[in-house]
Amino acid sequence: MHTMMEYPLTLAPLLERAGKSFGGAEIASRLPDRSWRRYDYREFRRRSLALAECLLAAGIKKHERVATLMWNHYAHFETYFGVPLSGGILHPLNLRLHPNEIAFIVNHAQDRFLIVDDVLLPVLEKFREQVRFERIFVVRHSGPLPPGMEDYDEWLKQATGNVTLPALAENDGASMCYTSGTTGNPKGVIYAHRTVVLQSMAAAMVDTTAICRRDNILVASSMFHVNGWCLPYVAALVGAKLVLPGPLLDAESVLNILEDEKITIACGVPTIWMAVVEMLEKHPGRWKRAHDIRVMCGGSAAPEFLIRALDRHRIRLIHAWGMTETAPTATVSRLQPEMDNWPEDRKYAVRAKQGWPLPFVELRIMTPAGEAPHDGQAVGELECRGAWIAGSYYNAPGTDDRWSPDGWFRTGDMAAIDPDGCIRIADRSKDMIKSGGEWISSVDLENALISHPAVREAAVVAIHHPKWQERPLAVVVLRDHEKSSPEELRSFLGERFAKWQLPDDVVFVNQLPHTSTGKLLKAELRKQYATWKWSGV
Amino acid sequence: MHTMMEYPLTLAPLLERAGKSFGGAEIASRLPDRSWRRYDYREFRRRSLALAECLLAAGIKKHERVATLMWNHYAHFETYFGVPLSGGILHPLNLRLHPNEIAFIVNHAQDRFLIVDDVLLPVLEKFREQVRFERIFVVRHSGPLPPGMEDYDEWLKQATGNVTLPALAENDGASMCYTSGTTGNPKGVIYAHRTVVLQSMAAAMVDTTAICRRDNILVASSMFHVNGWCLPYVAALVGAKLVLPGPLLDAESVLNILEDEKITIACGVPTIWMAVVEMLEKHPGRWKRAHDIRVMCGGSAAPEFLIRALDRHRIRLIHAWGMTETAPTATVSRLQPEMDNWPEDRKYAVRAKQGWPLPFVELRIMTPAGEAPHDGQAVGELECRGAWIAGSYYNAPGTDDRWSPDGWFRTGDMAAIDPDGCIRIADRSKDMIKSGGEWISSVDLENALISHPAVREAAVVAIHHPKWQERPLAVVVLRDHEKSSPEELRSFLGERFAKWQLPDDVVFVNQLPHTSTGKLLKAELRKQYATWKWSGV
Repeated sequence: MHTMMEYPLTLAPLLERAGKSFGGAEIASRLPDRSWRRYDYREFRRRSLALAECLLAAGIKKHERVATLMWNHYAHFETYFGVPLSGGILHPLNLRLHPNEIAFIVNHAQDRFLIVDDVLLPVLEKFREQVRFERIFVVRHSGPLPPGMEDYDEWLKQATGNVTLPALAENDGASMCYTSGTTGNPKGVIYAHRTVVLQSMAAAMVDTTAICRRDNILVASSMFHVNGWCLPYVAALVGAKLVLPGPLLDAESVLNILEDEKITIACGVPTIWMAVVEMLEKHPGRWKRAHDIRVMCGGSAAPEFLIRALDRHRIRLIHAWGMTETAPTATVSRLQPEMDNWPEDRKYAVRAKQGWPLPFVELRIMTPAGEAPHDGQAVGELECRGAWIAGSYYNAPGTDDRWSPDGWFRTGDMAAIDPDGCIRIADRSKDMIKSGGEWISSVDLENALISHPAVREAAVVAIHHPKWQERPLAVVVLRDHEKSSPEELRSFLGERFAKWQLPDDVVFVNQLPHTSTGKLLKAELRKQYATWKWSGV
Repeated sequence: MHTMMEYPLTLAPLLERAGKSFGGAEIASRLPDRSWRRYDYREFRRRSLALAECLLAAGIKKHERVATLMWNHYAHFETYFGVPLSGGILHPLNLRLHPNEIAFIVNHAQDRFLIVDDVLLPVLEKFREQVRFERIFVVRHSGPLPPGMEDYDEWLKQATGNVTLPALAENDGASMCYTSGTTGNPKGVIYAHRTVVLQSMAAAMVDTTAICRRDNILVASSMFHVNGWCLPYVAALVGAKLVLPGPLLDAESVLNILEDEKITIACGVPTIWMAVVEMLEKHPGRWKRAHDIRVMCGGSAAPEFLIRALDRHRIRLIHAWGMTETAPTATVSRLQPEMDNWPEDRKYAVRAKQGWPLPFVELRIMTPAGEAPHDGQAVGELECRGAWIAGSYYNAPGTDDRWSPDGWFRTGDMAAIDPDGCIRIADRSKDMIKSGGEWISSVDLENALISHPAVREAAVVAIHHPKWQERPLAVVVLRDHEKSSPEELRSFLGERFAKWQLPDDVVFVNQLPHTSTGKLLKAELRKQYATWKWSGV
């Protein structure tokens, strides 16, 4: 019972307001050839609507999926609005996955159209035979158009600007994303328009990112990861200048952008910021204006030394936690006013935690004995529910056990919760390895290894790596009288896994540690190899 | 089609998070006897839940109304959550209205219970015979408990802390408010839980109020006006220190609070801030720390000289616009980055406009010829729609014409819209007078005046007033051979109107200006009396 008008939370009014109220604000894209393309939100709105019109002319029906295979730039951002406003669901593909995995995802999502960067056509070629796109549109940065494909920019020119967009409900799907943060096949999550709107509003709050009209944002997280952590949508919500860096995310490129584009806030995985710190310390005084920047850091835990090191260069890391299933930001760590007078060490310890839940996100920790107390000590599996948390996977029978009987999402992360609600991720329950912000499944690698005729048993564990945070180390027991080599096993795995997912080293041992019930004691192995010296480093 | 969990936007998780994540943040209330009562959000959560439990024990049913007659303090704030969480609808009464009007509103809303300040019992006495509250709970600041009434604090002590609150949907009503900003009977708007949540999130955005955990908020707008402009809810959303000033809003009291409570943001009508400026200029150096404060100012237009004067004291006025039907904030005026290098005069002119719509608020201006262009020149009636705009009045047949056939709310304000969407309110279409943030209907006064046997015709117009911004001036034509006096007519009107609604002066003339079709030419009268010297000033 209320007397308010019905008004769905969709991306349509968000785009209209961006084009109208801050039409002159800039969107700057660095292209694969290192050149820049710059235009403003007014032009962005026009082109996004043109894309929606062209998709409708191509016959797109409500909720049909449109895939993208693109770096971070203007055209990818146009699909963020153009596809959902046509009634379709945007489906950015993770170009770092193994071609077989991408093919699985495309077929599972039943993607109808593809929009692809010309520089990524070689990636497409590796799985094209396994999938069927009705039409493929190429964003051309250089070079000719392959036969059977269409030019994205030419396509947009067919738009008349006169189109009636379909009516949208806030529970209509807007975009989808697959997670490889689980074992087995990748699983998809479909975000509703409402999901994106609410996550964007919560992300914009002062105690989350404080992104506003006066910010210049560098999105250094991939736009194929959970809507680029939703930050491109936040930029459009508030009219911030948006800088999309294309494929080049080496430390020098990032620092040049921070300086030249007067960036005030950036986001990205810890790997990027570790490289940035190293570069800053190697070349003191080279970047004189790359400071007073806040950095939203997530994707994997940011170590305390990184937070301290960035502080020395007046770059303030803000630690956030989330995942594909949480759309993504669920917690953020900000010093509370009552901590202002705490000793420095204690403050850094807080900033290295994953922090407090955003409004409309609830957290609890569960052990086999039930819900654990929030005393900062008890560790259990972190579960969450909230206004932008997944309630199921798309068309994935047998995955219901990822939700509790009373409807909370089981994150797979082990955590402790302080009395005031601040969380600290202690470990992962499912032996996933987080390398440079991307997931590697140790279980999948183990299963593949023991399918090799020479292998009797195998364990893959996450070992700290100075650049990638974690890398997989395989510990293998060979069958009696069999022989193998690290090179042979890596090449064997290479048939199914992307190169970056392969164990960096393989150790052969006579036996693996087990529990009394015969389960692998991975904790023991992690301890044993904790100080492993990677051969390539 | 999406895979997200269902999670309604209600006030329940907002209160839980406030009690948990920033349980130690302060809520400070100044009581009618000038003493302070201070507690924290943890205690606030406990008491609000106790109120919900007590209301359930009293038999409240879903959507039944609970009225309040209170100043701004902790108990009023407790009703903001306790009533909606019990499933009821909070209904704060505007204690400044005429007793007959309050009685009409109570009966129209069918308020079942009342929670009232003991110092406001004399107000209650004036309409108590006309209404029927089942139970009356008194917040006692001093003095005995009248017979037949119950003590609010004693009542809360009956709560066990063990209660199952009713399940809430986001479209359940949370609170209601009557507007006197129209002619005829007051009209009610019922805000849903979702309305309050979305308005709070939008209000918290950096480019709106930027309210955050580190803010100390003074709510100097009445809590019976549109949820205290929603700012108490915003405070609970982000964990800001909340200061509720009770009845004392004279300039000296306000300045003492700004200084003593280290206020960083305040809100209130222009009248309050005009008095504050005057006091600051009269006593230079007396308040040394009452600065670096932002002031959300709405309720009526803030004149440019006020914005300039506050700037001289490092108090930054931020101009907002809204009304009861817009829950309330619809636009806010913030300088855009591209204006930074504009000359000062041009910047002040922008800040004196009502500004840009919040996300998920859409505006247009309509003339008899249709929608007018957004060229900053064309003036038409401002219409709006959005995520927190009323779609109807509660149980008010015959008011459908306040909405356009295509569902936009007709605000009654005349405005121009700049090409970038910034609005400027030019005038009102319905001859309402805005005095110190409260509405006075000139038409209602005119109708009452001509019911006096000596009056042939009457016009009431808004004339600028140095303190109240506008006050009503009555221009009266007497019947032949009849006599009257300003005193007699004011006393005649006093039977139906509150004292502050009466015309300050009455002028007798031989005739009033009319259009060719016989309608009163009020614009002509406003021009003629524009420089009226008020007798009391």
